[in-house]
Amino acid sequence: MSDAQTSGSTSQAPGFYRFRIGAFEVVALHDGVVVRDRPAGFVRNASDEEVGEAFAALGMPRDKLTLTFTPLAIRTGNGVVLIDTGFGEGGPPGTGRTLSNLAAAGIAPEEVSTVLISHFHGDHIAGLRRKDGTPVYPKAEIAVPEPEWAFWMDDARMAVAPEGLKPNFGLVRQAFGPDAGSVRRFGWGDEVLPGFTAIQANGHTPGMTAFTIGSGNESMMFVADITNNPLIFARHPDWQAMFDMDPEQTIATRRRILDQAAADKMRVSFYHAPFPATGYILRNGSGYEFAPALWTNPAG
Amino acid sequence: MSDAQTSGSTSQAPGFYRFRIGAFEVVALHDGVVVRDRPAGFVRNASDEEVGEAFAALGMPRDKLTLTFTPLAIRTGNGVVLIDTGFGEGGPPGTGRTLSNLAAAGIAPEEVSTVLISHFHGDHIAGLRRKDGTPVYPKAEIAVPEPEWAFWMDDARMAVAPEGLKPNFGLVRQAFGPDAGSVRRFGWGDEVLPGFTAIQANGHTPGMTAFTIGSGNESMMFVADITNNPLIFARHPDWQAMFDMDPEQTIATRRRILDQAAADKMRVSFYHAPFPATGYILRNGSGYEFAPALWTNPAG
Repeated sequence: MSDAQTSGSTSQAPGFYRFRIGAFEVVALHDGVVVRDRPAGFVRNASDEEVGEAFAALGMPRDKLTLTFTPLAIRTGNGVVLIDTGFGEGGPPGTGRTLSNLAAAGIAPEEVSTVLISHFHGDHIAGLRRKDGTPVYPKAEIAVPEPEWAFWMDDARMAVAPEGLKPNFGLVRQAFGPDAGSVRRFGWGDEVLPGFTAIQANGHTPGMTAFTIGSGNESMMFVADITNNPLIFARHPDWQAMFDMDPEQTIATRRRILDQAAADKMRVSFYHAPFPATGYILRNGSGYEFAPALWTNPAG
Repeated sequence: MSDAQTSGSTSQAPGFYRFRIGAFEVVALHDGVVVRDRPAGFVRNASDEEVGEAFAALGMPRDKLTLTFTPLAIRTGNGVVLIDTGFGEGGPPGTGRTLSNLAAAGIAPEEVSTVLISHFHGDHIAGLRRKDGTPVYPKAEIAVPEPEWAFWMDDARMAVAPEGLKPNFGLVRQAFGPDAGSVRRFGWGDEVLPGFTAIQANGHTPGMTAFTIGSGNESMMFVADITNNPLIFARHPDWQAMFDMDPEQTIATRRRILDQAAADKMRVSFYHAPFPATGYILRNGSGYEFAPALWTNPAG
């Protein structure tokens, strides 16, 4: 099936969506969708039946795990900042569309001046590099969270890592590859670029980072994976997904950021929300609700 | 600003989105967006401050009324059914994109075999006819709810209608025009076309109709305007919008359909939800929550 807009009656529209934050143009990019069997124990502290019921209520197959992936490109007027890369060429079928959707939005890979990385899972970093090892964004500086780098680039830790974690150590080395020496590392609280501030969001991984993006008097936050699908985990903020490395810290981070988003009425973009994956957080009993932003066309 | 995909760096992706219901392909079409001053008393039984606060929590300007419009086209394998038309050529700036988005989705106006109308407000029927009076869908049968027709086509009622309602009587006559004699009228409960059943949904207007759309073992419901923006009115199901002609009946209809959608875990498409305007209804305290469906690409 083709992504081309007019090539066939079953093609989808290109998966990009623009909106404005002050003078910045933010473009949400659809990297794709993965549907796989839902692993037993996907949520550590809820029964598989309860989780299946929550999935079914959202129209998702009860026994499947459906995930979408949404990097952001931000035209700042002084270069294009890409936040996370999607899977690139080597991901599961149905993914790897970031580059073609970037092209559909009129942005060439050479225009990307900075790639900001939230954390070092494959769906966020594997798209840095082609299968042949060449960088996808040849002119971009790559900037990553220092605590994430410290954890995953520690060879001693890799040597003693549990088997389940070892592939990700390898993937990280492949993604940064020969350019590892030139990767910029930033700390939580740093203004990484004008208008972009790194926010502590660890738990899912040891160094996961959210970013506030501000221009003029407008701002938003890219919250990365503080939830897997927020339709599930905003409603059930205390559910611990099996992908979260530190469950307690994950939940503390999730509640802090969702509380702030609700209090500040701040636009947020999730990596795993339904495309275009941007909206607002409302308090809802003991949990939260993700409310999608209005889609405007032309870009508003 | 152009809608063309690659004509400029600020163009939005085409506003269509495909999904499947059994053997049917459903295409959500973005007719556009209107932002206007929010009239005082927009919600009859809530204060303007309370309503403004609810808008702001969703990232919508507090004192503006932001509305989007989403007709559906359904390829049935035996013709294309269009449900509601958008504003057509004569609507407010930023609207009237149904036809161009239909083209972007690869559907020619001549392929539309039936236009189903939910109710007779301009954003749902004005796109039946061009400014010069020619029909936009030349080969389509037009099918409308009998109780809606009975109300608006009653010349005696028009003569004594309150001033505020008179323009809509005129608009209805303009939209059906010389073809009024060939318009098909259906009743609530009728299977209007194979797989399409008319569901009583009056209140917003005297004859408003929802449609269930079923193929194989899958089904969904187009719920028309049982809410203005469902992000607001699903959370506040007892709020009475000033556009609802019979407030009590509107709320009874809204609760009946939202209850059913939540109980049946049934996909619903709203006319005024954020594009692609399709998702699921969850119970939420004394109200409901609209959860968008996952966006898949390629069309799933």
